[in-house]
Amino acid sequence: MNKIYVVGIGPGAYEEMTGAAVQALEASDVIIGYTVYVDLVKEHFSEKEFLTTPMKKEVDRCVLAFEEAMKGKTVSMICSGDAGVYGMAGLMYEVGVNYPEAELVIVPGVTAATGGAAVLGAPLIHDFCLISLSDLLTPWEKIQARLLGASQADFVICLYNPSSRKRHDYLMKACDLMMQYKSPETVCGIVSNIAREGQASRIMTLKELRDTQVDMFTTVFIGNSQTKEINGKMVTPRGYRDV
Amino acid sequence: MNKIYVVGIGPGAYEEMTGAAVQALEASDVIIGYTVYVDLVKEHFSEKEFLTTPMKKEVDRCVLAFEEAMKGKTVSMICSGDAGVYGMAGLMYEVGVNYPEAELVIVPGVTAATGGAAVLGAPLIHDFCLISLSDLLTPWEKIQARLLGASQADFVICLYNPSSRKRHDYLMKACDLMMQYKSPETVCGIVSNIAREGQASRIMTLKELRDTQVDMFTTVFIGNSQTKEINGKMVTPRGYRDV
Repeated sequence: MNKIYVVGIGPGAYEEMTGAAVQALEASDVIIGYTVYVDLVKEHFSEKEFLTTPMKKEVDRCVLAFEEAMKGKTVSMICSGDAGVYGMAGLMYEVGVNYPEAELVIVPGVTAATGGAAVLGAPLIHDFCLISLSDLLTPWEKIQARLLGASQADFVICLYNPSSRKRHDYLMKACDLMMQYKSPETVCGIVSNIAREGQASRIMTLKELRDTQVDMFTTVFIGNSQTKEINGKMVTPRGYRDV
Repeated sequence: MNKIYVVGIGPGAYEEMTGAAVQALEASDVIIGYTVYVDLVKEHFSEKEFLTTPMKKEVDRCVLAFEEAMKGKTVSMICSGDAGVYGMAGLMYEVGVNYPEAELVIVPGVTAATGGAAVLGAPLIHDFCLISLSDLLTPWEKIQARLLGASQADFVICLYNPSSRKRHDYLMKACDLMMQYKSPETVCGIVSNIAREGQASRIMTLKELRDTQVDMFTTVFIGNSQTKEINGKMVTPRGYRDV
């Protein structure tokens, strides 16, 4: 059976892909992914076969990748950002138990946390946490405990999936929890459509973030107690002692 | 004044750089960095001017970048991994206060957390924290509080700077703290020299990790309560419900 590459294509722009990711797609016969991500790379690999499955059909997508590889094709499964951060790499190993002869190669990429950080300035210079606000597969109590624990220990926090139609008030709830330990004046930032058309960013306080509406294409950053705004950029120092 | 690019070159191999990072270095007259990182890219950009400063001279390195840009040169400051994760991006903004006409462009890259995760399998699929064990600029009490808080909230934890000559027992101390909340059987992994010559990785339990010697080129991963070993790979599921 041929190799299956699980490839993080970065936040969006072709230029944000690594050389290794480009090589993996070039070496593949078929490229599989969620429709939106396939559309991001299609024009650069127009001679390839593309297969898509809709959102929430992730297990089907994995099975499809293994079945295509069984036919003797070299396969790339693509994810936005990094395939190993809220991406498909884990599920590919889980589904792969049924395909013991398959060899998976994970190709890392720039995840939304670091891609978005570069737009805002340098918010993630020191210890930070990534927390997804989606409670589809995680109980809200667990998410709540993480928001509180991370705030109490003064981590910079980066939120993935901050909102959806069903969860329109989750960011507000999360801000209220974080404000139990973080100052309402904490420097925060939001970035939407990172490295894609319509990229937009804004810096604000945690108090202001609480009352801000964001969409599912937005990544949210909450500073630590040292994070500051420097000329419109969000910057976290390297430590707690003067440089 | 010309642009200054602050560029994450990824974990090591040239192929791990993004297209945007390659473009930034190609557009530059001078490339500045710590000696080890300059050596990683030098052969691919041999016609460029290279300037290096030793470790712990980070402020000098930033000043050098701005001074070179003042001469009319286009400058790239390079960092391993991502420039915004324990990298130079933050300090460049801080030092840049003295050079208001300078325009900084941060070019994100693959950080050791996601680069190392790809080697181990898929440990970072769900909420995770990055914690540096270096207490050079951060009080140990703060690091301790983060290790405890992150363990209690069942985060996957990725440790940067797990060891040095002066801090040979810090990983052991950190494991003892994490075991206050995490099972000694928690699946862990270590990766050294990610995407470089001599890359090596190992999967073990938290109890075993406690008694393992690592060096400063090692990145350490501690799973959450759901993380498992699948055919020699470290895999964290997407959530807490069955897929």
